[in-house]
Amino acid sequence: MKRDDLIDFAFGGNKVRLFEYLAADIIEKKANKIITFGSVHSNHTRVAAIVANKLGIACDLIILYDGHSPDSNAPNLRLIKYCTNIHLEFCPTDQAHDFIDSYLDMQKQERCNYYWIPGGGHTTVAAQGYIDAAHEILEQAYDLNIDAIFLPCGTGTTQAGLIAGINNQIPIYGITVARNTKRCKKEIETLLSQMGYRYVSGSEINVLPCQIKYGDKSEEVQSLIKEICGSDGIMLDPVYNAKSFLTTKHYLKMNSSFRNVIYLNTGGSPNLF
Amino acid sequence: MKRDDLIDFAFGGNKVRLFEYLAADIIEKKANKIITFGSVHSNHTRVAAIVANKLGIACDLIILYDGHSPDSNAPNLRLIKYCTNIHLEFCPTDQAHDFIDSYLDMQKQERCNYYWIPGGGHTTVAAQGYIDAAHEILEQAYDLNIDAIFLPCGTGTTQAGLIAGINNQIPIYGITVARNTKRCKKEIETLLSQMGYRYVSGSEINVLPCQIKYGDKSEEVQSLIKEICGSDGIMLDPVYNAKSFLTTKHYLKMNSSFRNVIYLNTGGSPNLF
Repeated sequence: MKRDDLIDFAFGGNKVRLFEYLAADIIEKKANKIITFGSVHSNHTRVAAIVANKLGIACDLIILYDGHSPDSNAPNLRLIKYCTNIHLEFCPTDQAHDFIDSYLDMQKQERCNYYWIPGGGHTTVAAQGYIDAAHEILEQAYDLNIDAIFLPCGTGTTQAGLIAGINNQIPIYGITVARNTKRCKKEIETLLSQMGYRYVSGSEINVLPCQIKYGDKSEEVQSLIKEICGSDGIMLDPVYNAKSFLTTKHYLKMNSSFRNVIYLNTGGSPNLF
Repeated sequence: MKRDDLIDFAFGGNKVRLFEYLAADIIEKKANKIITFGSVHSNHTRVAAIVANKLGIACDLIILYDGHSPDSNAPNLRLIKYCTNIHLEFCPTDQAHDFIDSYLDMQKQERCNYYWIPGGGHTTVAAQGYIDAAHEILEQAYDLNIDAIFLPCGTGTTQAGLIAGINNQIPIYGITVARNTKRCKKEIETLLSQMGYRYVSGSEINVLPCQIKYGDKSEEVQSLIKEICGSDGIMLDPVYNAKSFLTTKHYLKMNSSFRNVIYLNTGGSPNLF
């Protein structure tokens, strides 16, 4: 297991690696505000808020929710409340598109020099963080004969960076926890081509479906968390990693030719609470 | 800051280092159950439960509480629920002594081969974990001209181990978050003498009082958490580290001769939730 959950900034996880490059870009563009969005469970918005604090700039977060009202007790939201100069807007998921458009229009009219980040940090700039991670993995695992790398796939940014950095040396399998596999592959393919990485078509990108829905806390997920906690003292988050780890296990059972695999723990431990 | 909050087992923190040695002792004694106790906020009980799972043995936890009833929603308790084969007993703090005595008597009568751990893991075996940590610190900081090490002090186990390992090479200041300074010094002195570490009397042990009470979430603590989150992306737990970091800051303001100091972050991040 590659423990990106232990990264030492902002409660760790893959989003911190993405923000290493986003932060540099924000500084270069002299932006005075980050604007982005995510669900109440979003690790991306938590890291965005803390990075904005670190840079001494404002941060507007559009928090999407399903159902009647947002869960204001969600752990990542509670951590965001430790940040200063943060403005929260809540919006039902099905109205997100229009809401965000008009919100950004308003900011433009006010001539705010903001830095817009799509949900999950899905940009070519951010993906560079996982090119670095890929090089780290290749160095750390060079004598381990790794057959495959598995990781959770949300918007595909992390997987795109990994693919570019691993550069066909190890097969990579994303497990989609939010979208259908076709859309994931398409997004990854597009990002890779925008990054100037050539010769990859959707059919060469491995995205496995996750049987368990985003936000769902099934009994199978809970018992997987218990199992890994008991065997290794590692507490997988229920939103991304427990689910994709479970799918990884199922997949490996059916494909016994894989002997040594790396599972990338992308963090999100606040969601255990 | 020495980031023991990032230790890669069981949500990290100083208790994991203590349990490295306790676990070895449990295995050697072929115990089939851990029995220990702690408050609802206790990091010690959380690590005890996960270690018991890892060793494949049972764990009885006596959870102490003040007021009418225990906060069953406390974050460490919620993590303990991911463990299997755990038995929880709840007991008002002021009845702890008698309750524990009769509980252990009952276990003896049932000829249970249990392993008893005092609250906080306060034993000479456990303290060895911080002799190792001290050597790690000396190695990592050998060219940094460190003037002092500050750390939170609960039962004093961590500080006793550090004192033994640092062996007078750097002054060590504990900040007591639960007990009065006199009792802390006495406990540390006793543990050091049981460990065979000589020539230390209570008067040579530095324990500073913490202005803020155990469990209290004052505004000053909250704003310190915000400050360190914004400046460094590090989220200090409100029960131990935010409080003792605050006292450290106050102390350093009054003692300007200290230039380079290490603050030992002993973990406990679940209590942020």
